[in-house]
Formats: sequence, C-alpha cells, structure tokens
Amino acid sequence: MVDDPKPGTHPFAGDPVFDLHVGGKMQLAATVPLSGRDDLSLAYTPGVARVCEAIAEDPEMTQHYTWVPNVVAVVTDGTAVLGLGDIGPAAAMPVMEGKAVLFKQFGGVDAVPICLATTDVEEIIETVARLAPSFGGINLEDISAPRCFEIEERLKALLDIPVFHDDQHGTAVVALAALQNSLTLTGRTPAETRVVVSGAGAAGVAVTRILLEAGIQDLAVLDRQGVLNSERPDLNAVKRALAVDTADRFGRRGSLADAMAGADVYIGVSGGTVPEEIVASMAPDAIIFALANPTPEVHPEVASRYARVVATGRSDFPNQINNVLAFPGIFRGAFDVHATAITEGMKLAAANALAGLVGDDLSEELVIPSPFDPRVGPAVSTAVAEAARRDGVARR
Amino acid sequence: MVDDPKPGTHPFAGDPVFDLHVGGKMQLAATVPLSGRDDLSLAYTPGVARVCEAIAEDPEMTQHYTWVPNVVAVVTDGTAVLGLGDIGPAAAMPVMEGKAVLFKQFGGVDAVPICLATTDVEEIIETVARLAPSFGGINLEDISAPRCFEIEERLKALLDIPVFHDDQHGTAVVALAALQNSLTLTGRTPAETRVVVSGAGAAGVAVTRILLEAGIQDLAVLDRQGVLNSERPDLNAVKRALAVDTADRFGRRGSLADAMAGADVYIGVSGGTVPEEIVASMAPDAIIFALANPTPEVHPEVASRYARVVATGRSDFPNQINNVLAFPGIFRGAFDVHATAITEGMKLAAANALAGLVGDDLSEELVIPSPFDPRVGPAVSTAVAEAARRDGVARR
Repeated sequence: MVDDPKPGTHPFAGDPVFDLHVGGKMQLAATVPLSGRDDLSLAYTPGVARVCEAIAEDPEMTQHYTWVPNVVAVVTDGTAVLGLGDIGPAAAMPVMEGKAVLFKQFGGVDAVPICLATTDVEEIIETVARLAPSFGGINLEDISAPRCFEIEERLKALLDIPVFHDDQHGTAVVALAALQNSLTLTGRTPAETRVVVSGAGAAGVAVTRILLEAGIQDLAVLDRQGVLNSERPDLNAVKRALAVDTADRFGRRGSLADAMAGADVYIGVSGGTVPEEIVASMAPDAIIFALANPTPEVHPEVASRYARVVATGRSDFPNQINNVLAFPGIFRGAFDVHATAITEGMKLAAANALAGLVGDDLSEELVIPSPFDPRVGPAVSTAVAEAARRDGVARR
Repeated sequence: MVDDPKPGTHPFAGDPVFDLHVGGKMQLAATVPLSGRDDLSLAYTPGVARVCEAIAEDPEMTQHYTWVPNVVAVVTDGTAVLGLGDIGPAAAMPVMEGKAVLFKQFGGVDAVPICLATTDVEEIIETVARLAPSFGGINLEDISAPRCFEIEERLKALLDIPVFHDDQHGTAVVALAALQNSLTLTGRTPAETRVVVSGAGAAGVAVTRILLEAGIQDLAVLDRQGVLNSERPDLNAVKRALAVDTADRFGRRGSLADAMAGADVYIGVSGGTVPEEIVASMAPDAIIFALANPTPEVHPEVASRYARVVATGRSDFPNQINNVLAFPGIFRGAFDVHATAITEGMKLAAANALAGLVGDDLSEELVIPSPFDPRVGPAVSTAVAEAARRDGVARR
C-alpha cells in the first residue's frame, strides 16, 4: 500500500547514487504509541486539547510538549547549491535532505528541508518569519551572496530562535579550528601570520570575519578582480566593509600573485586554480586550505610540494574541512539550552572545541578531527551550550 | 547528549497526557546509511550533485529521488483549533503533530506540521505557495471559516499538487459514508430524505456540498441565526450560495425547531445542544449524527430514544465519525498515482469505499468502520487512486 519504489524501476536504475536516492533519504516517525483508542485519546483528541491550552496560557510550554525545540528548518532558495549554482528549489532538495540526515546523524537534531519558490530577499525573510512558530531554529543553506548576508542579519534581528547560515559560519568555524592547529604546528601566532582568503562570497566573508575575531591582522581577501581594497570602485557594501578591515590596514592590493608572494596561509573558497608558480611564492612552512569541491584550487599533491600543512574539502585526502564537523553540534548545543541566538562567542567556542580534540595527535596530516570521530558532536555541543550561557542567550 | 527530558522533570509531570507529550510526538529519521565516508559520498557530496543535476534537467525526477512526493505539509494559522478556537500557531502545534503521526500510522504518509505566524488570507496563500516545492501535498487544518474557503480554492488554482482542507472534506467524506449506510439500513433513498445540517462553518459547508453531490435534495443548513435562506440579509457569500442550493429549493426557513420537525436526518457540526423536544419531533427511524467534540449536540443516550441510527465524533460510543478514516487514505491514494489535485470524484470514491467496508455487518451500531480496521487505509487509497485516474489528475 505504501508507495515504495524498488531499484530497477526508476530512470537511473543501476547507478549506486540514484539507487540510494529512490524515495528520498528521510522519513518521519511517531515517538508515541498509536495502536488503539486509548493511545489516540492521549496523543490526539480529547487529551491533546489540554496541551494546546497549556501552551496558549504559557508559550514556554512549547519547549516541553512539542517537537519544536529540537527541529531546525533547512531553508534554501536554490541559488547557490554546492558548486552547481542557481539550480532552483526543486533541484536543491537532495542536498537539503542530505543536510537534514547529517543533522540527525551527527547532532540528534530533527531537520526539515524547506526549498522556497522565491529568490526575492524580502519574500524569503517574510516567509521564514511566518514559519518561525514551527521551528526551534533556522539553518539557511545555499543562498547566493550577497543576498545571504542581508537575509541572515535581518532574520537574526526579527526572530528569537537561532538563525545560522551554514555556508558562512559552518565553514568559518571548521577553517578556524584547522588554522589554529596549523599555526601551533608551524610555530606561528595569529598576530604575525599573513593570510590570503580567495573568494568573497558567503564562505569567504565569514571565514575572514572569524579570523579577524581570532586575532589574525594581516589578511587580504580576493574576488575575481583581485584584492579587495577601498580604492576599488566596483565593491558592494559587504566587500567594501571587508576591505576596510583587511587589505586596507596593510595597504595590500593587486592580483592573487601579488597577495600570495610571501603569504603564510592560503584559504581558497572560490573555485578556480592557483598556478603552481604562485603557490611556490608563499612563505616557508606555508599552510594551504584549498576548499573548493570537488576540485580544490590547488591539488593536494601540488600543494604538498610547497606547503607544510594542506587541507581540502575532500574526504580522500588528509585534513578534511567539512561543515558537518560544526553545524550538528552547534545546533545541538544551542537547542540543549534553548538558546535564542547563535552568538560569535558560540562559534568561537565551537572552533576551539574542534581544534582541542586533535590534542597530542597534532601533525601535518591531522590538524582537524575526522567527521566520524564520535567525540566531535558532544565536544562541540557542550562548548556551544556553555558559551550560550556566558553570552546570556540560554533560556535554561 | 541528545536532549531527552524524562517524565518527572516537566511542569505537568504525572499527568499521563503531558507525560506522553514530553519532547513532542514525532521525529525525523534517515532512510539511508550514514556510517562512513563511502555512505556520505553517495548520500551527500560529491554523489548528491548528480541527483540535483538530474532534477534541474527534468523536474519530474523529484518524484523518484526525493522524499517530496510522500510528504504533506499540515498547515494551520491556529484560528480554529479543535473546539478551542483561535489559540494561535504555537498552541496549535500539538494538534498538528497529532495529525502528522496519524498520517504516518494510517497512511504511510510523511507529514510536517507548519504553524504560521499570520492569519492574513493573502499572506497564508503566498506563504504556502512559496513552500510548495518542498511538499507533495498541502493539508490545511484548523483555519477558521470563511477564510478557509478562499485559501483552499485559491491554493488549488495556484498549485499542481493536492490541496485538501481536512476540517471540510475529511469530515464530509466520513459523514457521507456513514449516511449512505444509514439510508440503506432505514430503507431510504437520497432523493426522498430530508436532512438538517446544523453549522455553516468549514465542516457544515463541506458536508452539505458532498450530500448534494450524492443526491440529497431537501436539505436545510443552519447557523446560529437559523436556516440559511436567501431572504436573510446577514449572509456572507459562502452562506448565500449555500442557501440557494439548499433551503431555497423547498422554501424552508425559521429556527432549528422549524427545520427539525419531521426531518429524517440531523447532522450537527456546530456545538451547542439540541433540546430533547426538538429531537423528538423528527421523523420515525431518524438518523442523528451529533459530531461536536467532546460534547455532542445530542447526547447519544437521548438521541437513541428517538433515532434509529446515532453517530458521534467520540470513540466511546458506536459509529465514530472520525476524519482519520479518510485523510490518510486519501493522501496515500493521491500520492500513489502522483495526483495533481484531489477531485470531487476522489472524495466520493473515498466515501463509497468506506461505506462498502461495513458490508454485511451493517447495523444500527455499525454504519461506519472503526479507525482501527486495517482494511480502511488500503480500501480508501485504492479507490482514491482509481478515481484520480478516471478524473485525469494521475501522473502515473
């Protein structure tokens, strides 16, 4: 009776990826018994009416008697999906389902994929705000820059539940953790480290911001036209603000080649390829995070010729910078204390917790834990919950 | 680590209803393995990108490779929840969760509760339309009349997925099924049966409409001011249209007492109480469906003194008119054939299938099957799927 298509009956049968995706990757399940009239009289009418009345009288009861405080909406408009770009809301769904099952697997968080049939900033904001009573948190996903910045900022101001754009902050948290360990390994302090961030989209902006908060001072951010600096007339408001806080301070300008000569750290979140001679121009004991997926900006074999630490977004090389190290534990920690927001302090605490898990195993091949290290979720969530309390956003 | 409050730690601990509701009534679960890098490379990056591309190229692939075609959004604005009225979206959540778990238990349908922070008709319509790529169907729930009629009609016109307002059509389908069997039992035909429907809200309007489609001709609908007829200056557009198709045809007017004298059938979907002397004025072998919950308009013991068939919305008396007999199987059937709508033909087919299950067991105590009869879901879904094909709304 339940529609359950079998491999062999679908258009791409025999392809393991498509076979796996038949029927989607997730389902809902009741957590209460429903096998007889007595069960229904508790879970549904007439019993449920008393729960509704209790919440109507005291909205805080939502936190006890509904699934809401454990549910995050994974919201996209389909404009910046993986490296595929603007493929629309329907085609974004497999990624959102994937995200949802990772939330559950690595954080015990229930996640509902919401793919919106609008790309208008105002419409996205008002739609998410109207959905808010249904969810304990909002995870924005794969929304193109610079719209994603305004959407996140305004929803954070509007709502009293955590709002988090994973493409920005998940990446930033994990990159910071890996960089902290890489600096330790190579004997550097943040203040004396020169960093190049290639890419000024969602990830590039957030990585830059968290590195500045963590004490990096000499930092150049590049888009396709070169180093962001205030002399450039073509910058939008987000990039202009970033220029003031980065390249302007040390007067850096010019091309990728200019920025990379003598740099200690390269963080690529842009795609494209860095020519080998530019990689070769970096400082000794360089650190290269080439995070574009599936094709890193510098192939790890090339990078290893010139850099002491190499990280990518891929699982088939050491040091995978994977957001799944961050977002499940961040929401788990926020939900555990019924946090009203995810603060900068909570993100930094997540990065510190991740970095700390490497401990004595720190090496060129291990600057960040594996996503399958079972300590990751608990360590991140505990640190995030504590930071929420320190920052005054915990409700319990 | 996962937040799992235990009975004994919550405000209403010891109360079985609240103990059951701790943490809510549902959760999400992955249906694919996620225990290692190979699993992730199929379910998430890099594998998932190919599924996204396939959908971007052919949106029909959504039906094969996502959970969307099996997911219904249970959407409310919290304005007409059970008998509680306008308690708001947060307080409506326990009912929506209950509905969602019934969808799963009785139809194998995944259902996501969506409680909206707006009661504006335009905002509800545009919000649901923007959510549509995420869902295979929309179940409107507990939205007050007359707003619910416009919201449903306009969403049906806008969207190419099933849109169904259960408070209207679920009730109507089950009531029609019970009435068909009651007429058989009492030797009546629809054309010679005089029906009184008390209540002109969502359920009353839909019950009336489906009875007219099923051949009932002499029908009076009442609101608190009496019988709806075109002479009344106080009717809204929905009630005015209903008056033309009902009481106007036989010139009926007046009070409940006027309408009930000699009537064959009373269907109460209004609340309030019908005085015993009015019940006594009905025709011999009367049929009384007193569906208000938890307090029927006529207590079954009183009704039984004057009527041959008595049904209520309660599980502790015979003949429970419960929407759960209809909505899970209706969506199951619609989803099984990827229907683009739920037609009148599909609703009538659901009612006929339900009525038919009683068969040779038909008696005064059994005019409608039990919600726990395991034949109900399959019978309804099969009939609905066949009707969808007949009506040309099936996509497979």
